[in-house]
Amino acid sequence: MTPMLAVRAVAGNAIVAATPAIVDLLGVLGYAQLCGFDRLAADSRLAPTLAGRADMARMAAVELAHYETLDARLRELGADPAHAMAPFVEPLERYHALTQPSSWFEALVKAYIGGGLADDFYLQVARYVDEPTRQLIETVLADEGQGEFAIREVQAAVEADTALGARLSLWGRRLVGEAISQAQHVLAGRDPLMRLLVESGDLAGLAGMIGHLTERNAERMARLGLKS
Amino acid sequence: MTPMLAVRAVAGNAIVAATPAIVDLLGVLGYAQLCGFDRLAADSRLAPTLAGRADMARMAAVELAHYETLDARLRELGADPAHAMAPFVEPLERYHALTQPSSWFEALVKAYIGGGLADDFYLQVARYVDEPTRQLIETVLADEGQGEFAIREVQAAVEADTALGARLSLWGRRLVGEAISQAQHVLAGRDPLMRLLVESGDLAGLAGMIGHLTERNAERMARLGLKS
Repeated sequence: MTPMLAVRAVAGNAIVAATPAIVDLLGVLGYAQLCGFDRLAADSRLAPTLAGRADMARMAAVELAHYETLDARLRELGADPAHAMAPFVEPLERYHALTQPSSWFEALVKAYIGGGLADDFYLQVARYVDEPTRQLIETVLADEGQGEFAIREVQAAVEADTALGARLSLWGRRLVGEAISQAQHVLAGRDPLMRLLVESGDLAGLAGMIGHLTERNAERMARLGLKS
Repeated sequence: MTPMLAVRAVAGNAIVAATPAIVDLLGVLGYAQLCGFDRLAADSRLAPTLAGRADMARMAAVELAHYETLDARLRELGADPAHAMAPFVEPLERYHALTQPSSWFEALVKAYIGGGLADDFYLQVARYVDEPTRQLIETVLADEGQGEFAIREVQAAVEADTALGARLSLWGRRLVGEAISQAQHVLAGRDPLMRLLVESGDLAGLAGMIGHLTERNAERMARLGLKS
């Protein structure tokens, strides 16, 4: 986690960041939603039932709606969305390439665990930006209970099959590992985003953020019936 | 076109069909929208720009919204959507497998030409079903001008590159050929849908339908700057 070591979190004392950092944040989040859309759409084809396929397709469509909001906000700020997203294409595509699900259950775990972790991370970072941007990000990432079908299906399957539970637990941990690794690449290459996070080097804040992400991830894994 | 030879069209004299035919029609249309969704989502990745990618992704999301409407209508009629769609999975998947675009322009032509032809066909068939179903299908397939970006991009490209225009004209004609071939398979295997179309064998009506589909397709090809 080297590039994140200097993250500073002053609770209740949000830093109004320079525009480049906000553009970076909206850019990475925007591309995450856009490629989340087509990855979920592709993964929906792994569903054994049309109902499951439609559930995941619906999740994909929600990501696209989020993308549209972020794209509009970037334009409002006078930024070119394509330009804002460009630096994040490679690490996000690499994350997806390295975590391509090979079964419906892997796809469900990825949608729920990978998606949840990413959302938590963006929400944490959003604490350091201006109020309108923060509110926009919180709205975009508001949990709409779309993951309920994933919980239902994975839980039932691992209850009936211990070996599957063990394999999916490993898969869930691998997703987290790859996400952290790509997050490091993103931060290492982006000065504005880094500066937003390191402004005054409060290590307690960083520890708090990592602790929070870890805890929330463990809760999600447990909800699926998996070991984190 | 053998299986369609006995199609009967009595303009202004819609036959209220037996429920199995309506379930078939909603089923084939539903699966067409659901797989249209993920095919367009996949093809959106061929876009050279984020704006183009978002345009096609948006088109995909519209297909999914249509799918939801059809799914809801099937349930209303007491039908199991998965069961209603099952017979059409194979021919629709075969169509897409045989017409996988290998470039962004092929994807644009497919979205506009293939999508338009399918919509026209469903609208024609909808003339033979009960009023609420017909209205639902017309609402679902109402042209929302989503194809405008395809027209804009293809037109500009073929104006600048005659060889590309010739290749894409061939591609467009191939799409129509594959669509007709799969439509034959669909109709040959589905008695209720066939019976809906052949009820009293008005060959003038069939000729009219084919003529209409051909004419509308030629209009779309011309709008793209292609030869049909």
